Amino acid sequence: MHGEFQLPKEIPARETPELNFLDDEFAELKKLNQDVISNIDEYEPWDALVRAAEGLEGGLNRNASPNAIAAFREIYDRFLAKFPLFFVYWKRYADLEFHIAGTEAAEMVYERGVASIGNSVDLWSNYVTFKMDTCHDIDIIRELFERGAAYVGLDWQSQPFWNKYLEFEDRSEAPHKTFAILSRLLSTPIHAHREYFDRFRHAAQYRPLAELAPVETVEAFRAELMAENPNRSEQEIERDIRARIDAGHLNTFTLTQAECQKRAPFEDQIKRPYFHTSAVDPDELVNWRKYLDFEETEGNYERIVFLYERCVVICALYEEFWLRFARWMSGQHDKVQEVRSIFERASCVWVPITKTKVRLQYALFEETQGRIAVARDIYTAILIRLPSNLEAIIALANLERRNGGINDAIEVFKGFLTSATVDIFGKGYLVAEWATLLWKIKGSADEAREVYQKNAQWYTQSRPFWVGWFMFELQQPTSAKSEKVQYERIKGVWENIFEKSSISPAVIKDVAHLYMEYLLQRGTKDAAKEYLKVDREINGPISMRKNRLPEDGTGFGNLFTDTNAPTTESAVRLGHSVFNRYYRDPSEAVAAPFAQGFPQHR
Amino acid sequence: MHGEFQLPKEIPARETPELNFLDDEFAELKKLNQDVISNIDEYEPWDALVRAAEGLEGGLNRNASPNAIAAFREIYDRFLAKFPLFFVYWKRYADLEFHIAGTEAAEMVYERGVASIGNSVDLWSNYVTFKMDTCHDIDIIRELFERGAAYVGLDWQSQPFWNKYLEFEDRSEAPHKTFAILSRLLSTPIHAHREYFDRFRHAAQYRPLAELAPVETVEAFRAELMAENPNRSEQEIERDIRARIDAGHLNTFTLTQAECQKRAPFEDQIKRPYFHTSAVDPDELVNWRKYLDFEETEGNYERIVFLYERCVVICALYEEFWLRFARWMSGQHDKVQEVRSIFERASCVWVPITKTKVRLQYALFEETQGRIAVARDIYTAILIRLPSNLEAIIALANLERRNGGINDAIEVFKGFLTSATVDIFGKGYLVAEWATLLWKIKGSADEAREVYQKNAQWYTQSRPFWVGWFMFELQQPTSAKSEKVQYERIKGVWENIFEKSSISPAVIKDVAHLYMEYLLQRGTKDAAKEYLKVDREINGPISMRKNRLPEDGTGFGNLFTDTNAPTTESAVRLGHSVFNRYYRDPSEAVAAPFAQGFPQHR
Repeated sequence: MHGEFQLPKEIPARETPELNFLDDEFAELKKLNQDVISNIDEYEPWDALVRAAEGLEGGLNRNASPNAIAAFREIYDRFLAKFPLFFVYWKRYADLEFHIAGTEAAEMVYERGVASIGNSVDLWSNYVTFKMDTCHDIDIIRELFERGAAYVGLDWQSQPFWNKYLEFEDRSEAPHKTFAILSRLLSTPIHAHREYFDRFRHAAQYRPLAELAPVETVEAFRAELMAENPNRSEQEIERDIRARIDAGHLNTFTLTQAECQKRAPFEDQIKRPYFHTSAVDPDELVNWRKYLDFEETEGNYERIVFLYERCVVICALYEEFWLRFARWMSGQHDKVQEVRSIFERASCVWVPITKTKVRLQYALFEETQGRIAVARDIYTAILIRLPSNLEAIIALANLERRNGGINDAIEVFKGFLTSATVDIFGKGYLVAEWATLLWKIKGSADEAREVYQKNAQWYTQSRPFWVGWFMFELQQPTSAKSEKVQYERIKGVWENIFEKSSISPAVIKDVAHLYMEYLLQRGTKDAAKEYLKVDREINGPISMRKNRLPEDGTGFGNLFTDTNAPTTESAVRLGHSVFNRYYRDPSEAVAAPFAQGFPQHR
Repeated sequence: MHGEFQLPKEIPARETPELNFLDDEFAELKKLNQDVISNIDEYEPWDALVRAAEGLEGGLNRNASPNAIAAFREIYDRFLAKFPLFFVYWKRYADLEFHIAGTEAAEMVYERGVASIGNSVDLWSNYVTFKMDTCHDIDIIRELFERGAAYVGLDWQSQPFWNKYLEFEDRSEAPHKTFAILSRLLSTPIHAHREYFDRFRHAAQYRPLAELAPVETVEAFRAELMAENPNRSEQEIERDIRARIDAGHLNTFTLTQAECQKRAPFEDQIKRPYFHTSAVDPDELVNWRKYLDFEETEGNYERIVFLYERCVVICALYEEFWLRFARWMSGQHDKVQEVRSIFERASCVWVPITKTKVRLQYALFEETQGRIAVARDIYTAILIRLPSNLEAIIALANLERRNGGINDAIEVFKGFLTSATVDIFGKGYLVAEWATLLWKIKGSADEAREVYQKNAQWYTQSRPFWVGWFMFELQQPTSAKSEKVQYERIKGVWENIFEKSSISPAVIKDVAHLYMEYLLQRGTKDAAKEYLKVDREINGPISMRKNRLPEDGTGFGNLFTDTNAPTTESAVRLGHSVFNRYYRDPSEAVAAPFAQGFPQHR
């Protein structure tokens, strides 16, 4: 898991799984497999396929045909590669392997299962039960119980596992071992805590002092009691010592109960304690956020990590919690490897590729760790699936800039500017980024301006391009003497946008308001005239701006007919409904598409 | 109306009208007057006061006491100074004056009435009726009718007036005059057009040819007819000429009917054809916007202006239509005086002072006309009522800058920075504007930076100040070599905002995202580390940002209890509900308060 990075292993499994059967005897499977291929991310077709595989030849067993067994295993492996968090299937897989190939095969499956979803109480309970049934070496079994305890022992609902463990020790007639487990649970805040305490207290009466408390404690108590009253019988003394120790246990119990009560409200709200592909109820998401906040303020590293691990299984498809886990972990001391593991699991297995945020963070993290090649591969992996993802392109360019130089970054932009997969909006955006590099990094406004000028002809419809150019000129430094030149430049871009560009009226209106603001704030006397002119053309009645008919082809025709056309947010964003907007509310406020000011903001 | 500008005459009338009665005999009036004073903008108390004045001494007449008459006149004058558009009251005022002081007094009131609301068909109809009853000089009456026709003759609902006019000419036994009026109406698209045409056509049969068409036309027809058939009787010829002329009239009728039909849909939707203080129905506002669009595309200047004048009476309290009227008029050739008149009426009489947009436009207009003093007075007038209006302050400062110099502008800012009426938000905003002047106009980034540094201590809570400073540093030009210095500066401002300022978490979060964006776009290798650090502190879980507890005092306490606290838009804007927002939707998008990018944008 921590070796050099390769493109996520799982990706092939997410791709269409072409089953390479030896011959045509599995028509049913082939059909179901087609369903899976066409809905690769959906649970139901997968489930149908898996069930069909289990049912081959009327239920698989050690007498089944090799082909059937091969198909069954391949399907299960593919399914669990895609959905490793469905613990139930690991259990079923193991059971079937037990019937088909026996103990070792089943055990292998269990091991793969707990490696995939280590914090499943149920899976561990099944595993240890299986072990108790199939193994006779008490030490080996106990070792497995201890492994499981480390994984799920802190789980609020871990009593199925603990009960098994206690049952095992009872059976193996090691009462002192049973008692040792109960002592452990004495200070573990879980749902069944009170119940275990009652058992503990009852058992304590029959355990030797040595098992109840450290020998020093016992001796200390004894000394005190002797001091109080030297001539008492050994029985009386032991009775009093036990009473004092019991008081101590009672105290521990009370403290742990308090811990339980703090967590109960959060635990009670967890209606879905397992992974599923369907959405998690919003209230439960809120509950997880609050629960994590709580454990973090409690400050116990083990408990916090344990809770996060539970959370990212149940909410595995929610980028939010992976990001939060990584951020929290990166705030701890010296946990680089842990952070990396979180990012890897999130990026390579769980979070859908369309949610790029966690991957972009991952790449940045690796870059800060000096693993440039890994970071680059992560961006590449995103761009294989989303070839026009601007965030990834820009992040890649900046990676090259930081570690190579500005030209390497520009090469990246140029590469995507000739790509067929990036649309005009995106390319205009990249040109703006490219110009910004020349301007801000190289400090050459002239070269940046040249980029805009040379590309203007290609991007008449690209908002980011024009807005970028306009903001670029608007932000150039000026002084009393240079202002005149700058005014001409800004005016020039404005006129291009207003007269030549074919971007939506709403955006033009927004740029106009920045231009007007500029005129008032920096302009000369004539600027006030220019202001009123632009104001008339932009905010004046339709008849004053005949050159800005909307792009959707609605001429004056619909001005007098269609007043009820809906004004949707998206339509306004696109500026298509400028007339409706104009009728509904002729506000001159800066409208949505441009409201975020900078071209860098989308 | 077009002399040098004075502070609006009407303002005193809008102020509390202290009635200076000679003695105490008008207790009732005094009481009602108090109601008016406490609801100066509301119609009902005024109406009650006016009615009480009319009812003094059981109804005023020529025998009423001088005091009663004085009170009555003062109240009516004040009322009509504030609400000059209530034509009904002009009529009632005139009637009462007629009973009190006779014809001349009544006529004076009518003259004031039509001067205040010249396009009221009803008022003109009342006036001319009054004139017919009280005057016996036909020419003088006819003159008044002609004046009225110029004011309201084009009104869709002008038939009451025209009927009066026709009745008058009938009575004065001038059938050719009557017929002349009907000929005029033949090509006037109004609601009663068809009815008048029928009268016209019927009357035409009995009018001599000379009144039906220009003599040349008649002769031309005659010549044609003679040519066709020389030996016809004069009667036959006249009959045929009449037939041809009638055909021509029919044609004119059809064309005018078409004009009527184009306007009917708009006219039918005008449910409120008069001014009132209550709100205009939104659908009617839409209708007005469409109707104006329509007339503008028709392109007949008289009709367009006529429609605007109707509109700004009915929608007198809606800034929107005054602005539109002014913008449209300013687009016509050589109409400076007309534009000024529109602005004056809007600013001095109708539009509530709280709607400053039209006044700011007015000031700019006067500035472009070289009337700097007037522009200055307009800003002053706004600031008398709204002493902390930032738009007006900034506009004033820019006026001084354009016509004096940068120092004059800075003086304006300094003046308001010491004023008690401007709050911390506003002052922070003005400081940012001041710095922007030094930076953009004077071209001295150092002086601008100094302004920010010197003032930082006073503005820890002022969003515009910190955002302004941050954006200032962010927009400084850089190059490979100067970047390092600039990075330190930007980082410094960021750290001030994050650690020292007490502006709302949401705003800090927004600035943080710009800072992070900067780090990626321009930062060096270390910047990626800094990015992850800031990301953790801003977007990480609460426990990672303990130094940013919300200002409203809600600590971690409510994290675990109050999850249902409402998240209002305003609360989000203020950033107070950052935690709720965080629970509802932990989106990292730039939030509302800062979304508009520039500090200049609010």
